[in-house]
Parts: sequence; C-alpha cells; structure tokens
Amino acid sequence: MTFCLKILGSGSSVPVYGRLHTAHLLTINNTRYLIDCGEGTQLSLMKYHLKQNRINAIFISHLHGDHYLGLTGLISSMHLLGRHKPLIIFAPPGLSEIISIQLKYSNTVISFDLRLIVLTGNRLHLIHETPTQTVHSFPLDHRVPCWGFIFREKPKSRRINKEKIPEKILIRDIIRLKSGKDLTDHSGRVIYKNKDLTFPPKKSRSYAYCSDTVYDPRIISYINGVDLLYHESTFLKEKEDIASKTYHTTSEQAAMIAKAANAKKLIIGHYSARYKDISEFRSEAVKTFGETELALEGKTFCVEE
Amino acid sequence: MTFCLKILGSGSSVPVYGRLHTAHLLTINNTRYLIDCGEGTQLSLMKYHLKQNRINAIFISHLHGDHYLGLTGLISSMHLLGRHKPLIIFAPPGLSEIISIQLKYSNTVISFDLRLIVLTGNRLHLIHETPTQTVHSFPLDHRVPCWGFIFREKPKSRRINKEKIPEKILIRDIIRLKSGKDLTDHSGRVIYKNKDLTFPPKKSRSYAYCSDTVYDPRIISYINGVDLLYHESTFLKEKEDIASKTYHTTSEQAAMIAKAANAKKLIIGHYSARYKDISEFRSEAVKTFGETELALEGKTFCVEE
Repeated sequence: MTFCLKILGSGSSVPVYGRLHTAHLLTINNTRYLIDCGEGTQLSLMKYHLKQNRINAIFISHLHGDHYLGLTGLISSMHLLGRHKPLIIFAPPGLSEIISIQLKYSNTVISFDLRLIVLTGNRLHLIHETPTQTVHSFPLDHRVPCWGFIFREKPKSRRINKEKIPEKILIRDIIRLKSGKDLTDHSGRVIYKNKDLTFPPKKSRSYAYCSDTVYDPRIISYINGVDLLYHESTFLKEKEDIASKTYHTTSEQAAMIAKAANAKKLIIGHYSARYKDISEFRSEAVKTFGETELALEGKTFCVEE
Repeated sequence: MTFCLKILGSGSSVPVYGRLHTAHLLTINNTRYLIDCGEGTQLSLMKYHLKQNRINAIFISHLHGDHYLGLTGLISSMHLLGRHKPLIIFAPPGLSEIISIQLKYSNTVISFDLRLIVLTGNRLHLIHETPTQTVHSFPLDHRVPCWGFIFREKPKSRRINKEKIPEKILIRDIIRLKSGKDLTDHSGRVIYKNKDLTFPPKKSRSYAYCSDTVYDPRIISYINGVDLLYHESTFLKEKEDIASKTYHTTSEQAAMIAKAANAKKLIIGHYSARYKDISEFRSEAVKTFGETELALEGKTFCVEE
C-alpha cells in the first residue's frame, strides 16, 4: 500500500530558478491530500499527470500568498472538470472570506460541496479522521497564524498466517485474530494462540509537515517519531539572524528539530530566492541529521510498510 | 521604437496542453503594459526574462479567475523584489476588495503606491494617457462585467530632413517644423515650406485587446483600423451554439470582426480546453480574414513604425 509524498513546489515567496511556490501531494493508498497550494499548483499536478479531482482534502498552513494563491484556480478547474464529490479544505481563519469573494465576482456556483474547516487552537488537535488515518494540526510560530499537520495511518490489523490457520475457520474468528485476540471455545478456553496464527501488523506510517516557522523546539513533542518530516529551511546557518527576524528556520535548525524528534527522514525546502545553488542546504543539515533530503520539484519520497 | 506584443498565456479557463491562462505584455518604447494576469503570469515573465518591476500599468478585463488570479502573487513579488515606483491597475469593480482582503490576511503592507482604478461605462472611455500614448476601455458582452482595451500611440511629429535644413537654425524653428508649421520671417512671410524641410511623421501604432466576449459587432466602431487586434476565439465554428451560450466567440466570428474593423492583423487565442490541436482555428479564420495568427506562449508580434 502506498505512502508517498510528491513535491510540487519547493521555493519560497518569490518563485525563482524553477522552484515553484509550496505544494505537497501526499498519497496514502487511495487517499490524496494536497498540502498548501501555491500559485501554479494546478500546472504542476498536470505536469506530473496527477488528476486534481482525485484529491480528497486540502490543508492550507497559513495565508501567505506563496502557500495558497493557487487554490481558487484549482477549485475553479475542479468545477469545470466536472467534480461532484465533496472537497474538504482545512485552512486558517480568512480563507473562506477570500474564496467566497472571488467566487462572487466571477459569478461562479461550484458544482461540488466545498467544506471549509477553520484551523484553531494552540496545541495538537485532531482535525480529520477516516477508518484508517488521522490528521492532526499543531501551531507553528510565524508572522501570521500558521499550523503544521501530521498525517498518520492508524494501527493496522495483525496479518493472518495462511499456512497456519485451520482450513475451516469462521469469518468472526478471522476478525478476532486480526484484532489480536486468541481463539477460544465455548467455555472460554484458548484453543489457538493469536501469535501462532498471525504475523505482526504492518507498520503505520506518518508524515509531519512543518510549514513556515521560526526555530521552535516546542513542536518536537508533536512530531516525535514520524517517518517523514518536512521542515522549512529558508536560510543557511550564515543567515540565522535573518531567519529569526523573519520567523523562518535555517537548515541546521531544521536538522536539530529532526534529530530531537527522532524522525526517520528529514526533507527540507522553502529555500530563499537569494540562493541559486541549494546543495549547501543538505550539506549543512547532514552534519546534524544524516537522513536529510532536499525537496525538489517532482521528487517523490515513499515510506515502506 | 518598439511596439511589440508578447503572448504569455493563450489558454482559457482550464490550463491544458501547455496553454497558460491569459496574459499579454505590450511594450511601447520604454512602457510596459500587462494585460490580464492569469495564474502563473509571474512565472512566464521570468521564463522570458521580462522584469516584472518594469511593468508600468496592468489592465484586467474581467474577474474570471483565468484572467486575474496571478495578480496578487505578482504584486507580492514586486513588493519583495523592492519595487518603489507606483503601479496603476485598471480593473472591474471588486478587484480592490479581493486584493485588499488578501493583503490583510497575509499582513502585507506593500512597498509601493498601488493605484487601483475602477473600470466603468458602457462606451469608449479614455482611461490612461501619457505624453505619447492613450489607452481607452470599451465594454464587452460576457457573463460578468468585462472590458476591452485599445492602446494607441498619439500622432507623432514630422521628422526633420537633416540634409535640407539651414545650417544655423533655431531650436524654436525646429519645434515649429516638427509640429508641421512653415518657417516665416518677422512679417509673417513664408521663407521655408514645412514639406521641403521635413519628412512625414512615423506611423502611430495601435493594439486592441478584445478579451472574453460573445460575437458582438458593436465593438467594430471602437477598434476600427487598429494595427494589431487580439480577439478571443474560444471555439471553432462547429461549436457556435456553445460559444453563444457561454458568451464566447468562434474563430470565424473573430475574423469577421477583424475584417469589418479593417484591422491590419488579427491574433486569436483563449482556445477551449476541448481542443488539443489548435491549427484549425487559424485555418478557419483565414477564410474570412487572411492576416490571422495564433496566439502561442512566448510568441511576439511587433508593428513597424
């Protein structure tokens, strides 16, 4: 089963050197989550042959233009391409007003149910749940209200060992085994131990998205142990003072967060327009956290089960 | 002196087959006018090495997303790239509200004077004037309030024939000659006829932009005799009924407008996403108006003086 992150845009406020505004597409099995939606996101989706109407939900971290200005165009295209299934958008206060006014002046009544859910709260907060996944938001410290997101698979069932289970077994017993229970007879006596008939569940994977933020160790408890961690890295260490003043992070600081959070892999991005060559971002980060990769347009990061 | 139109986007509502949302850049000598600004316009400007801060004014025809959704991102980048000179934007009612709300939520106070001028009126209307140019707006008939624009060079001065003018001539007499007057002595007697010392003025060039509109011969009087005419052509003749219902035009109808308006050259664009191959648009139009060209991303059309 798939758990893959596609980078659609890795740049920051001014799109230079082919680095587009921020957008990530996370695919968990058949579910597609778009995370931030900078200008040109719909063009990137087309470029990589990713059907926009397969997106189930959109998560907007904050209302700086480089993180959401592609949204109204994407919604409009979804409408024109005949979307009927609902679209849920999680976003900071204000986005509803922005989209409503744009739809009003374009005289557009969209063809699907658009559900806008306003992000709030200053702690970890469950915002979305399916039978197999959860999404939590948590606050980031930026110049405007800003949230990060954690996408997790729920704990999975134990897997049946087909070579060991009795030939004639009831469905209800399969369900018991998958949930970790032993099989018992009418009197409650164990006739099969679960561990003898099953394998452990496959791994439940996770992705944390830390959008624009100043270096803030308070987030470590929220993202502890994630498989994939995206953390912004707008500047190199040499510009730590500017990073701090503008509420951004350096690559070294992103690596410090990843290390302290015991992340399995760190992806850095949101490179300032001042840097043409971004290789130094990785070189700097790996000194602190070895498993660091650069966010680059079109690159895909998958987590095995 | 330059009079060139660069096509930055030729597509319609859904950007497909590499056809971006509408945007044209008109360069008249040192003045740069951006006409419509669909999503991704700032990326196109970069692609063609056109500095966004050299743009003097922006003209937005109407508030359908494919004609203006790149604007807030462009303004934001102009701000971040240190623009100080004022920017004038001519746009339908509502744009000011849309931009204001976006700047409010991104907590941005832009670094330059942004002057928003609201388009109004149901006839030809002078909206912008410089010592050498005029811009008029005129109403188009679309599903939302929509305007076209005509950019004209003012009549130019006669040109001095350097081989014929007397060696010792006063500046004031040069000015008289350029304005078309003869040179006289103190008693008012003609001593040099203007036509003997000057050449006729160079041609004053013009460009008319007819954005989204149903086929509407009422516009012919506004655009009569223009050198370059852009007219939308969303559909082929076979879809004339859909064109009419959606307040768009076919390529044949665009050619009929160009012919009736005695335009020198017609550029068609805004092709519907249903057409992958657009060559038929030109084939159809040239049957009615020979001097027809396709708007294609990156193509430049210049008018000689």
